[in-house]
Amino acid sequence: MPPTLRRPTAAPRVELHAVPGLPRIGAGDDLVRLTLAGIDAAGIGLRGGDVLVFAQKVVSKTEGRRVDLATVTPSPRAIEVAARVRKDARVVELILSESTRIVREAPDVLIVEHRLGFVMANAGIDQSNVAADGDCALLLPLDPDASAARLRAQVRQAAGVDVAVLINDSFGRPWRCGAVGVALGCAGLAALRDLRGRPDLFGRTLRVTEVAQADEIASAASMLMGQADEGLPVVVVRGLPARGDPAPARVLVRPAQQDLFR
Amino acid sequence: MPPTLRRPTAAPRVELHAVPGLPRIGAGDDLVRLTLAGIDAAGIGLRGGDVLVFAQKVVSKTEGRRVDLATVTPSPRAIEVAARVRKDARVVELILSESTRIVREAPDVLIVEHRLGFVMANAGIDQSNVAADGDCALLLPLDPDASAARLRAQVRQAAGVDVAVLINDSFGRPWRCGAVGVALGCAGLAALRDLRGRPDLFGRTLRVTEVAQADEIASAASMLMGQADEGLPVVVVRGLPARGDPAPARVLVRPAQQDLFR
Repeated sequence: MPPTLRRPTAAPRVELHAVPGLPRIGAGDDLVRLTLAGIDAAGIGLRGGDVLVFAQKVVSKTEGRRVDLATVTPSPRAIEVAARVRKDARVVELILSESTRIVREAPDVLIVEHRLGFVMANAGIDQSNVAADGDCALLLPLDPDASAARLRAQVRQAAGVDVAVLINDSFGRPWRCGAVGVALGCAGLAALRDLRGRPDLFGRTLRVTEVAQADEIASAASMLMGQADEGLPVVVVRGLPARGDPAPARVLVRPAQQDLFR
Repeated sequence: MPPTLRRPTAAPRVELHAVPGLPRIGAGDDLVRLTLAGIDAAGIGLRGGDVLVFAQKVVSKTEGRRVDLATVTPSPRAIEVAARVRKDARVVELILSESTRIVREAPDVLIVEHRLGFVMANAGIDQSNVAADGDCALLLPLDPDASAARLRAQVRQAAGVDVAVLINDSFGRPWRCGAVGVALGCAGLAALRDLRGRPDLFGRTLRVTEVAQADEIASAASMLMGQADEGLPVVVVRGLPARGDPAPARVLVRPAQQDLFR
């Protein structure tokens, strides 16, 4: 007999809502107030247990992480690296100042270990969509986990709702083409879920023992945020089945000595 | 004056529905029929433009990729590697037979380049959740892109609906802890979206130029699938804003000579 359906249970469901109508965000703007107003105007509502995902770019902007390149004096080392990788020496100066080491360089490519441990192109420094008047660059938040915690506390204070907060960005990766959303900052949920010790259906050890839950959520939100449109930098994720004990995004940085995937 | 909301536009929204009630899947089962029945019973419906994400495990099972370890005779090389990495030599034999090279080995760790180009632990071979009677292993589908295309055609034939299909799995990664969902197979959407040439708001070149759309969707679906529960191996993704010209998941494999992220 061919297999048939088991008694249908409820269909677990996750919804992602991009928050529409946000204005261009600048230094000092009240990102939480604007986000809550946008959520309200769009009829999305906000519920306990929702996850709010903010694009790194808007968090960096509100935190004043924009740098006028006219104020940057490149070091001799920055000038030397910039010539090799064909980038603006002032931008390279910023990249090096945000990094602990260069992982790889090639023409048009500069991959570094960011001071927060992330291995990423250009230390996450962005020259696109920063300003109409040109020569500016946008650095990552000083401490994205702290930013996430602060945004979370502000939401609780302003709306009386307990949400989790992620700050996401797009990273290129080894082995695979294309960038995907990853979590730079996390508050109110477990960035990494530890499944070790949980038996599978037959009592065997699970093959996958740790899930980077925050990165999966960051990728999901990234589907809606797009890249060229600054208008959708905040996404509400609703209905996540599991959460775990809260842990920040910094636990996702794999210590180099444990890294066997390279 | 503090910034205010722009005129609210519609809130872009994506829904993910796990298909409940699926039985344990075995070789030869009609995965599409069961999935459509589950979608129907749960009242999810199926619409043109939906993306159906299948866990690798159920696709491999229906395709008969389960191997009884009693039938496997390990080669001298497999025995040698197995002793070093502390694994069952028969499983190592299967891993090596599915791989083109060993990328890294250590006690309890064997990372290989799978014949399909994926760099992954154990060639994706799974001993968990395969069978109650023990000594079996489950290999990846022979050609996951072809599997996705076949499932897509079957859905169109059975339900008259044009959907995209992904086959996902969980991969560990360099630089970051924890596994995330990635796309092994893809049909009906662009696994990789090329944003090059699209100007940003200010006419600059975008920082991120290619997005691994299929991997982001695979991660999103993975949030709902869980790891220890075999009951939610299929997820319907509805409302994706962009799609692109269809391209299979194999385009996501980064040619080693272009890989600067390691």
